[in-house]
Amino acid sequence: MNVLYIYAHPEPRSFNSALRDIAMVTLARSGHQVKVSNLYVMKFKAVLDPQDFRIRADPDHFNPATEQIHGVRTGSLAPDIREEIEKISWADLLIFQFPIWWSYMPAILKGWIDRVFVQGFVVNLEESRVYDCGLLRGKRALIVATCGSTEEMYSKGGVHGDLREHLSIITHTIFEFTGMEALSPFIIYNVPALTREEGGHQLERYRSFLEMF
Amino acid sequence: MNVLYIYAHPEPRSFNSALRDIAMVTLARSGHQVKVSNLYVMKFKAVLDPQDFRIRADPDHFNPATEQIHGVRTGSLAPDIREEIEKISWADLLIFQFPIWWSYMPAILKGWIDRVFVQGFVVNLEESRVYDCGLLRGKRALIVATCGSTEEMYSKGGVHGDLREHLSIITHTIFEFTGMEALSPFIIYNVPALTREEGGHQLERYRSFLEMF
Repeated sequence: MNVLYIYAHPEPRSFNSALRDIAMVTLARSGHQVKVSNLYVMKFKAVLDPQDFRIRADPDHFNPATEQIHGVRTGSLAPDIREEIEKISWADLLIFQFPIWWSYMPAILKGWIDRVFVQGFVVNLEESRVYDCGLLRGKRALIVATCGSTEEMYSKGGVHGDLREHLSIITHTIFEFTGMEALSPFIIYNVPALTREEGGHQLERYRSFLEMF
Repeated sequence: MNVLYIYAHPEPRSFNSALRDIAMVTLARSGHQVKVSNLYVMKFKAVLDPQDFRIRADPDHFNPATEQIHGVRTGSLAPDIREEIEKISWADLLIFQFPIWWSYMPAILKGWIDRVFVQGFVVNLEESRVYDCGLLRGKRALIVATCGSTEEMYSKGGVHGDLREHLSIITHTIFEFTGMEALSPFIIYNVPALTREEGGHQLERYRSFLEMF
């Protein structure tokens, strides 16, 4: 299986990086091919703007959707976007690993979605190629997330509400909207409070989880 | 009343810019003071990273929360963050106007939240200064959003699910978490399909809405 691992954490020696390292070893051991988009290391441009489009459909008025469709048709999207699109095309499974910031993904990863998930490549609204007919049909997508709050705080009835419900914005209106099968998110709660031993257990839990693929 | 207007749209002659212009005139006419953070024009740095912190609590290991608290204590946050913090301190009402991209805000605005809503300024977790005791208590916050889908698509039971529920991630776990009163979002649906006349009606609706402040 081909796996694209999209990773968004700024510290190279964080618990997140340990999770990513476990994933690299485990996926390779299972015989999967893996490509990584390490967004902080790549200094990935986070902001969708006119510079993403080398040949404009309308140079006088910037409409992102119009330019994305035109950019796909003319092959004129910015090179960093085209590279990510090639990786997605190649992948059977997309794993998005990130720390929960404000119940959502970090801006650098939201920018990756804004810029790379271009209309004309992930969906085609004119032809109703969305959801079951989305252009990424056949691929699967998984969120692997760490957070600072406890599971109880992030549960239904907890102070922050149900994190899994919050993440359904991503799993439903991004993953499923583009036709992908959204896997149930793998979440590690209360990370700053984990002892060394508990952290080790979580890494083991992640390894076992990935071995099922 | 002091209003901070945080605006995130890349096209200066969009429907969003017409909404913003209406807001500027209407709020001024009502006697309010307004400051604007026009994130695309400011080329606001969207990515929280070690460069945001001039004096590090721990130069060897980057933990955003630790550095934010330290940055507030030492007054050493990056100048662009400090400027936004001053505007927030001054404001009674924060208005966030943006186009819905992937059922959420554009990355440049998420980056503004990631970078500017620093721990130690908006909340103090050690002293449980969150929600009703959040450090931004006394302020109000409003989302003004445009989207490309119809209200039916973005309703409970619609294909995308209820947009107002999606936005509760922002209104609850950002606005209310920091102690602000979250106002009910002002949403304009199906923007690309609006006729000139319908667009005019929506601008009028926004004007009337803002006159109530």
